[in-house]
Amino acid sequence: MTAPLRLGIAGLGTVGAGVVKIVRRQAGMLQTRAGRPVAITAVTARSRDKDRGVPLGDYGWEDDPVALASRDDVDILVELMGGADGPAKAATEAALDLGKTVVTANKAMLALHGQALAERAEAQNATIRFEAAVAGGIPVMKSLTEGLAGNQITRVMGVMNGTCNYILTRMGDAGLPYDEVFAEANALGYLEADPTLDVGGIDAAHKLTLLASVAFGTTPDFTGIEIEGIERVSIDDIRHAADMGFAIKLLGVAQPTARGLEQRMSPCLVPLASPLGQLDGATNMVVLEGDAVGQIVLRGAGAGEGPTASAVMGDVMDLARGLTVPTFGQPVSSLTQPKPAQAAAPAPYYLRMTLSDKPGAMAKVATALGEAGVSIDRMRQYQHEAPEAPVLFVTHKTTRAALDDALAAFPATGVVTGDPVALRIES
Amino acid sequence: MTAPLRLGIAGLGTVGAGVVKIVRRQAGMLQTRAGRPVAITAVTARSRDKDRGVPLGDYGWEDDPVALASRDDVDILVELMGGADGPAKAATEAALDLGKTVVTANKAMLALHGQALAERAEAQNATIRFEAAVAGGIPVMKSLTEGLAGNQITRVMGVMNGTCNYILTRMGDAGLPYDEVFAEANALGYLEADPTLDVGGIDAAHKLTLLASVAFGTTPDFTGIEIEGIERVSIDDIRHAADMGFAIKLLGVAQPTARGLEQRMSPCLVPLASPLGQLDGATNMVVLEGDAVGQIVLRGAGAGEGPTASAVMGDVMDLARGLTVPTFGQPVSSLTQPKPAQAAAPAPYYLRMTLSDKPGAMAKVATALGEAGVSIDRMRQYQHEAPEAPVLFVTHKTTRAALDDALAAFPATGVVTGDPVALRIES
Repeated sequence: MTAPLRLGIAGLGTVGAGVVKIVRRQAGMLQTRAGRPVAITAVTARSRDKDRGVPLGDYGWEDDPVALASRDDVDILVELMGGADGPAKAATEAALDLGKTVVTANKAMLALHGQALAERAEAQNATIRFEAAVAGGIPVMKSLTEGLAGNQITRVMGVMNGTCNYILTRMGDAGLPYDEVFAEANALGYLEADPTLDVGGIDAAHKLTLLASVAFGTTPDFTGIEIEGIERVSIDDIRHAADMGFAIKLLGVAQPTARGLEQRMSPCLVPLASPLGQLDGATNMVVLEGDAVGQIVLRGAGAGEGPTASAVMGDVMDLARGLTVPTFGQPVSSLTQPKPAQAAAPAPYYLRMTLSDKPGAMAKVATALGEAGVSIDRMRQYQHEAPEAPVLFVTHKTTRAALDDALAAFPATGVVTGDPVALRIES
Repeated sequence: MTAPLRLGIAGLGTVGAGVVKIVRRQAGMLQTRAGRPVAITAVTARSRDKDRGVPLGDYGWEDDPVALASRDDVDILVELMGGADGPAKAATEAALDLGKTVVTANKAMLALHGQALAERAEAQNATIRFEAAVAGGIPVMKSLTEGLAGNQITRVMGVMNGTCNYILTRMGDAGLPYDEVFAEANALGYLEADPTLDVGGIDAAHKLTLLASVAFGTTPDFTGIEIEGIERVSIDDIRHAADMGFAIKLLGVAQPTARGLEQRMSPCLVPLASPLGQLDGATNMVVLEGDAVGQIVLRGAGAGEGPTASAVMGDVMDLARGLTVPTFGQPVSSLTQPKPAQAAAPAPYYLRMTLSDKPGAMAKVATALGEAGVSIDRMRQYQHEAPEAPVLFVTHKTTRAALDDALAAFPATGVVTGDPVALRIES
């Protein structure tokens, strides 16, 4: 194989332009490593005239992504337009139907339509590669699918939305409330057009869907994820958690359990001294656990031109070298349909509430917890500003159901004012 | 490809037995993922009768590793005997000459003979896979060779000898001197038969050799590494470093510079708050830096049955899936001969010495440093036990040559007693 691998690039935003730059700048290096040239033959984007800081005159132009995917001089479609449906999906389907492999960063499309697209790919002996869709520059899909292929994976976890981690870190460092840091992140251009994709946990949940599928050999099941965003995390919670040796992270966890496949994306407390607890700013981290390897932790930039283009190029170079693996790591017909676990595994919880400052208030809450079967590990009362006092509990391991029973019993105590906050503690 | 991939396993120590266990326990999973069975057809080890906790009756037996490698029913030699020369090398050569790819954990053999063996492999269209040789279960070779294939790598760093990191961590935690912790590690079976391989930095330097070759497209050059072991690191240095916000790690660094390829393995100070500084115990960490991806940090178990067998199986599964990459990531003829940098890049240094407790002593040392062109960032004097006082300096960035000039001038000051300790600070 010494003929060039010919790419058609659909989408010339930050990542697309980054890919073009690497292919131009590193042509010699890529050819040496792959044993053949990597070339771009044609591109498409919404606007032909926009200056993207990189010359495009050498490449064919298509207005229509489907036309790009169908060109005879395009071997591989590099889909970097985004969007779960619409042109991205149409172009992907067109490429796959012609037996062309697709490299994409499109987590939404694969989380929602991954199974159907993988079937479509396999029918034509093609695959879909999506390293760039999960945790940016971190080679996590490759590590999981190939490096750890001898392991039965027991758990995957990760902080996979840099914007959320930036917001939570900044709230803690600067002592600013959520709304203010959210506005700041927005002004810096860190948020998606629809910010609930980020702060609502959707984007990170798309990524978790793909990780879980490859880790456990299951069909991608986005609807099976329990999702909670970071919108309700307060600066008080961040401070109190830190006082007790924890950081708050938007954490994705997927693990097979006796009750089915547990998949959740929610703000959790993690030990400040752990790799996840020490992860500050927009950096991503993924934790992979396997029966043979134990725990592997991968850390790196989760977004941005260079890191995401690096992941796209990793997939491209695999294809240039003739390395292919089925879309989700094994033949699509062998993926099993996951049964969603109806409840998360028991865990300790952090519980913050405000009590009216009268004698016996604490005892009433402790009784309500006890009657629901929730036992208390630690309790802390903060500055006493009558008539109300903020109180924290850390529970022993409990089910969310027992905790919800206790929360439901709080109003009847007559001493709990406002909505209590309950956050899971992940070890 | 649905025929089984047939392995011949040479060496049934901890790792070899671990590989046999995975192949037996996970046969179905491996077959689903690879699209074909992975089978063991024959094995060899020093003693046939030893109980290794795993049944071997299903497999052919060879007393001679070369005979194992040459068997018609062996597709892949899995070399887990170790040793740079002798039977490991003979069996590897026999397999390669027959066009069989070799999977090995043998860092010494590849660091010293990698170029010749890679040439031998390529002559027969075979390769050598060695994920297990570097940083145990961490899929670092795969991340570097494949995942980051679109990057020009600018630096690789790592803590890659778990025993050394265990010793340094334990000295700090327990306040025990080097000799005592060394004896403890020895009693726990953590040390190689020749312990200088570990504490002298040789084993970690073998690993750095392989990382550097793949990172920079250079022939493996073990002799180009500046090596210093941890034998001279004292409990005082660990404490003083911690006081100033640093941890001491046996750190390998390789980077191309204008002066040539810099490769060194030595005890360094790293910020306590950095991922490397937070790495405790026998865990390994590798830091990869590329022009597009920025910094990627990988962390995991660097040794032990499960993690090392996991790495071996990652390579085996690649081969079962038909994924092959040249031994050092690109054709062996395209590797360039590195020119060793004659001196490490400038850095700040930590400098500890004992001064005789007389007026003007500090000034004399400061003058000697200044005359050598070494400027002082911070100075700290510890408990004054006349007639001697321990003193620490942190210098600004300086060359090792300038520092050596200063060290050479110290005796003439008449106030420096004993040998000063100088450790590089790596950022």
